[in-house]
Amino acid sequence: MRLLLINPNTTSSMTAAMAKAGASVLAQGTELLDATAQYGPESIEGYYDEAFSVPPILDIVAAWQSAVDGVVIGCFDDTGVDAARTLTDVPVIGICQAAMQAAATLAGSFSVVTTLGRAVPALEHLALRYGYERVCRRVRSCEVPVLELENDRGDASRRIRAQIQAALDEEGAEAIVLGCAGMANFAKVLSQEFEVPVIEGVTVALKWVESLACLGLKTSSRGGYAPPRTKRFQGQAL
Amino acid sequence: MRLLLINPNTTSSMTAAMAKAGASVLAQGTELLDATAQYGPESIEGYYDEAFSVPPILDIVAAWQSAVDGVVIGCFDDTGVDAARTLTDVPVIGICQAAMQAAATLAGSFSVVTTLGRAVPALEHLALRYGYERVCRRVRSCEVPVLELENDRGDASRRIRAQIQAALDEEGAEAIVLGCAGMANFAKVLSQEFEVPVIEGVTVALKWVESLACLGLKTSSRGGYAPPRTKRFQGQAL
Amino acid sequence: MRLLLINPNTTSSMTAAMAKAGASVLAQGTELLDATAQYGPESIEGYYDEAFSVPPILDIVAAWQSAVDGVVIGCFDDTGVDAARTLTDVPVIGICQAAMQAAATLAGSFSVVTTLGRAVPALEHLALRYGYERVCRRVRSCEVPVLELENDRGDASRRIRAQIQAALDEEGAEAIVLGCAGMANFAKVLSQEFEVPVIEGVTVALKWVESLACLGLKTSSRGGYAPPRTKRFQGQAL
Amino acid sequence: MRLLLINPNTTSSMTAAMAKAGASVLAQGTELLDATAQYGPESIEGYYDEAFSVPPILDIVAAWQSAVDGVVIGCFDDTGVDAARTLTDVPVIGICQAAMQAAATLAGSFSVVTTLGRAVPALEHLALRYGYERVCRRVRSCEVPVLELENDRGDASRRIRAQIQAALDEEGAEAIVLGCAGMANFAKVLSQEFEVPVIEGVTVALKWVESLACLGLKTSSRGGYAPPRTKRFQGQAL
Amino acid sequence: MRLLLINPNTTSSMTAAMAKAGASVLAQGTELLDATAQYGPESIEGYYDEAFSVPPILDIVAAWQSAVDGVVIGCFDDTGVDAARTLTDVPVIGICQAAMQAAATLAGSFSVVTTLGRAVPALEHLALRYGYERVCRRVRSCEVPVLELENDRGDASRRIRAQIQAALDEEGAEAIVLGCAGMANFAKVLSQEFEVPVIEGVTVALKWVESLACLGLKTSSRGGYAPPRTKRFQGQAL
Amino acid sequence: MRLLLINPNTTSSMTAAMAKAGASVLAQGTELLDATAQYGPESIEGYYDEAFSVPPILDIVAAWQSAVDGVVIGCFDDTGVDAARTLTDVPVIGICQAAMQAAATLAGSFSVVTTLGRAVPALEHLALRYGYERVCRRVRSCEVPVLELENDRGDASRRIRAQIQAALDEEGAEAIVLGCAGMANFAKVLSQEFEVPVIEGVTVALKWVESLACLGLKTSSRGGYAPPRTKRFQGQAL
Repeated sequence: MRLLLINPNTTSSMTAAMAKAGASVLAQGTELLDATAQYGPESIEGYYDEAFSVPPILDIVAAWQSAVDGVVIGCFDDTGVDAARTLTDVPVIGICQAAMQAAATLAGSFSVVTTLGRAVPALEHLALRYGYERVCRRVRSCEVPVLELENDRGDASRRIRAQIQAALDEEGAEAIVLGCAGMANFAKVLSQEFEVPVIEGVTVALKWVESLACLGLKTSSRGGYAPPRTKRFQGQAL
Repeated sequence: MRLLLINPNTTSSMTAAMAKAGASVLAQGTELLDATAQYGPESIEGYYDEAFSVPPILDIVAAWQSAVDGVVIGCFDDTGVDAARTLTDVPVIGICQAAMQAAATLAGSFSVVTTLGRAVPALEHLALRYGYERVCRRVRSCEVPVLELENDRGDASRRIRAQIQAALDEEGAEAIVLGCAGMANFAKVLSQEFEVPVIEGVTVALKWVESLACLGLKTSSRGGYAPPRTKRFQGQAL
Repeated sequence: MRLLLINPNTTSSMTAAMAKAGASVLAQGTELLDATAQYGPESIEGYYDEAFSVPPILDIVAAWQSAVDGVVIGCFDDTGVDAARTLTDVPVIGICQAAMQAAATLAGSFSVVTTLGRAVPALEHLALRYGYERVCRRVRSCEVPVLELENDRGDASRRIRAQIQAALDEEGAEAIVLGCAGMANFAKVLSQEFEVPVIEGVTVALKWVESLACLGLKTSSRGGYAPPRTKRFQGQAL
Repeated sequence: MRLLLINPNTTSSMTAAMAKAGASVLAQGTELLDATAQYGPESIEGYYDEAFSVPPILDIVAAWQSAVDGVVIGCFDDTGVDAARTLTDVPVIGICQAAMQAAATLAGSFSVVTTLGRAVPALEHLALRYGYERVCRRVRSCEVPVLELENDRGDASRRIRAQIQAALDEEGAEAIVLGCAGMANFAKVLSQEFEVPVIEGVTVALKWVESLACLGLKTSSRGGYAPPRTKRFQGQAL
Repeated sequence: MRLLLINPNTTSSMTAAMAKAGASVLAQGTELLDATAQYGPESIEGYYDEAFSVPPILDIVAAWQSAVDGVVIGCFDDTGVDAARTLTDVPVIGICQAAMQAAATLAGSFSVVTTLGRAVPALEHLALRYGYERVCRRVRSCEVPVLELENDRGDASRRIRAQIQAALDEEGAEAIVLGCAGMANFAKVLSQEFEVPVIEGVTVALKWVESLACLGLKTSSRGGYAPPRTKRFQGQAL
Repeated sequence: MRLLLINPNTTSSMTAAMAKAGASVLAQGTELLDATAQYGPESIEGYYDEAFSVPPILDIVAAWQSAVDGVVIGCFDDTGVDAARTLTDVPVIGICQAAMQAAATLAGSFSVVTTLGRAVPALEHLALRYGYERVCRRVRSCEVPVLELENDRGDASRRIRAQIQAALDEEGAEAIVLGCAGMANFAKVLSQEFEVPVIEGVTVALKWVESLACLGLKTSSRGGYAPPRTKRFQGQAL
């Protein structure tokens, strides 16, 4: 089996970190391809950055769709997931949906800790659309930009810790979801420290899509995920 | 006052038709600029097309934002509205939100009639996000592609009529919202024929944004609509 | 075009203040009529007062409905709006619905600041009915009675300010809706002071109904807004 | 114990029928007072009629509140219930809320069968406000005006039967709520005929309020049901 | 009339206390039977205990169903209520649903104060299922185990008081529901002290089921409450 | 890794069929234990049967919890899942939640096809609790008892087909979830026949729990899933 992990921003060190985390958990015999957006923003923080990250995702999906058995989009905004599902019948999942589904099986409620306040409303929309508007008690931001997570000397993790503590104390959250691909490395240690599940989506999404692919399940081609109609595109379209 | 009407697809005849409809309803002294996406799909029918239409919208908004008092995005998927709101503090509205708000003031319930079935889920998500998941009784499709609406010889309108009749009979809808910018010309005659409000969003959105601008109201810059952070973009980004 | 602004309480100074604010924003050629309830309470603060303010509204609508192109009911409880819509086919809007719709186009979330705690549940019901139970983060009260807003020497505005600050800090509201017709004059200055949209409904409702009327849109006469059946009324009925 | 049953329309034969039904179910020692609106419409069918029926209800509540232990408002629109609760600390209940609560304890879902289509949206709002937007599967109308229920020669009951059958077949409703005080007499026979609970609200509301009063429970005076503030009323106010 | 009050835990002193409270409020001529679970946990605090308390409830219902006119299950988790309703056509109610319905007729909002934090999620699910996810503002725990309520020397009531005060201050609750059968004795005095309705479910449920039975209302046998199919049970089943 | 698959009914042929399906999809190195309820009903069809199937589940979980890395409960009612999660910190999942989560990643909407109408309300409650009350368009029943699925000679599959076709035609479902462990064998062929994802939960749940266990994720022990308190149980308790 071959899975494709797409980093929708252009920062290849983030791709490498995600791929490394992913490779360590996949089954023997599962090959992991990774791809980095060839254009667009270096990080995705809110509506504006999201908008520019979708076409490069679709370029990658279009190029690889016939060669892979499943796709993970490695941004917590689940950017481009719906569009990508129209291009292929293999399972496609975003790390937000995967992490929230895992959290909902491990705990009765959870809070999300993401990077910046500007990203919060988009994540609240995802929680609503995925049906977690009640189980997801709050989306919190630690006010650390995405790229500062990479070389954290302690400040980022201190700010994340403060939000986790607040989520446990104020909302009584039973689990924590880390709301950024760049936070993946923090999950294990925070989980031990706070003695609650602290879930990051990259590895969860990869295992989930590996499972769905293993079962031969396909993305529906009825309704919203029907293949795109043939039509004229001008400029940089596919 | 100067308003900007953006057609996010590349079909300039649709821009012209929308601009003509808009020009006839704006107040004396309101100037209407129109702009057509410079790249991307010729029509927007579902998730995939949407994805490619957002960057050209943002190009236009970035170029004009200091010169206009309000922006309307002329696609019923409200494509790019959130991202556009981060680029300017003038009011920005999509024709779906505008039409649904109008319908909710004129009737106790409504159904949407859009083009293709593949577009329905995206519109259901908008209804949910805008709070109309109860008042919007159903999103129906007439299975007429967007560009076939332009030169209708009767088949398109016959199919739209059939869905309107079904919405009145089956859901008891008290009003109808036409779910495509290309249907704007049908609204008046259908309204008279069926004796219920049949609402198209282009003119409603233009009058609504003109009103908000006239009142000096601005888009919030707190939270999700905060201006984009400065960062590196590769490729065709702004 | 001729619009009718109804003050459902009997305090004519409030009518005058609302009409003055309204007159300054309407288009050239739009005439504004105003009417004050001829009987009922001097201010509307909660369920009891509301009940007595509806019949005088309907008297006014019945008298004027054939002579106007749109109606605004100038009480944030949207008192009598549903009943008024059965009496006329011109657009009728309440200032709560109008303000919330504006807020939902300018910001991702908002909180309401109203007068007294006893008015809060009725406004929460409106937020739910209008679909804003998620986007409206909280309805707050500043504990200033309606009529004390008229001659504020600073205490009222200080109390309103405190609630706005709390809404920004505690709920992360991206905009504020002022929940009383008597607060209209505070909107501009508070908007500048807090650097978020602070929205009052009287002018928004007037521009919105002017827009709908300009577009020839009518209130539905199907279902809930069908004209009243002819029947015997005893006592002060129409 | 003394209970007050208010008929908010002016048709005293309906009051008598409700009082007769009520008297047959109350406990020994419970006295039932009944009162008919002294002004307003002869029947309540939709938003307009509702508006005129609230002040006469409040007149009655104000006159009797110190002399009774509980109040039932005998109109399925639960007209005036909120306002009445501000005037007294004894329990006040409407027949819609009572019937829906009973249905929700006897069945997993129910549909409402009411009189006219124009009354449906108001009942849908009540279902939402009371939390039954899921359990109440549909509000149906049989298109029989209220006053024609009184002297039914078979047509009304035939139309009600047809709607009940449709509710069982189409929505799989597990119980039926009769959505008009005038339908009370039909409940028993329809219940036997269709072998599902067919619930009418008048007797349920009386027993429920008798129970709450027996337990010494009072209406809250915090928040929305705080007693009205003293203020000037013009005209026919209290 | 004969009612059956079931204590689903094995602590017979709790049964006696509930029966005593119930006996004091029922109508003359209503006989109250009580039954204690013959096996299972001594108190019910969360999902695990709940699971073991349902079979003994069903044993009791099966034994008595033809001899009683209504059943109350005296645990705030409404344990076994759905299953019990399949075994009999007399009304069956749990004390949570009864108390919440009473609260919703006496106040615009309420908070629940229950025993332990582990019980909170199950009660939140009940609030959602019963439609009170908006009106029930919060489920709070005072961290007093069920059996410590029986011989309170002041600590339990002090902790309950603290949560009530917080509910009034923080959520603006208009009423309080006591979330444990063992708290029944506290209701009256707390109601007087805090001057809001403080509702306990045992007496409410008994009066409610007495009322429903008096009206001849039956549990539906359509859908979810259809009688169990005949099938083989191994081990301790009926 | 070692997973435990529990069949909560006493029919061991169903256990064998589920275990066989599961064994074929698990990773090399994953051992699958299976266990059949030692007492209780031979099949689970509705609230009553559910009640008796939970204690035997908990017996099995208690016996095995220290020896396994994950638990799947093989009944579509997700019977006992909450209670089981309090007994162990390894991931525990029911086949309904797993199947619905898979469906929500593969399609924009789905309908469930289950066995008997009496099981429908319990599944609607699960859909609501899991947040799929919008995405799950309808829960349908084919009126085939569980145990008749085992030796189907065509009638069962014909009835299931009819419901799938209706779900596609009437609700526009984009995927189908088979709502009974006994339907697992039908999934592949129906998926091919109808050209939409037809999902059964047993294999999905096993792969999902294998994934969560592989990632080292644990069930939360905060709040609702805290370990049971030590207390006296009478009779057959643990």
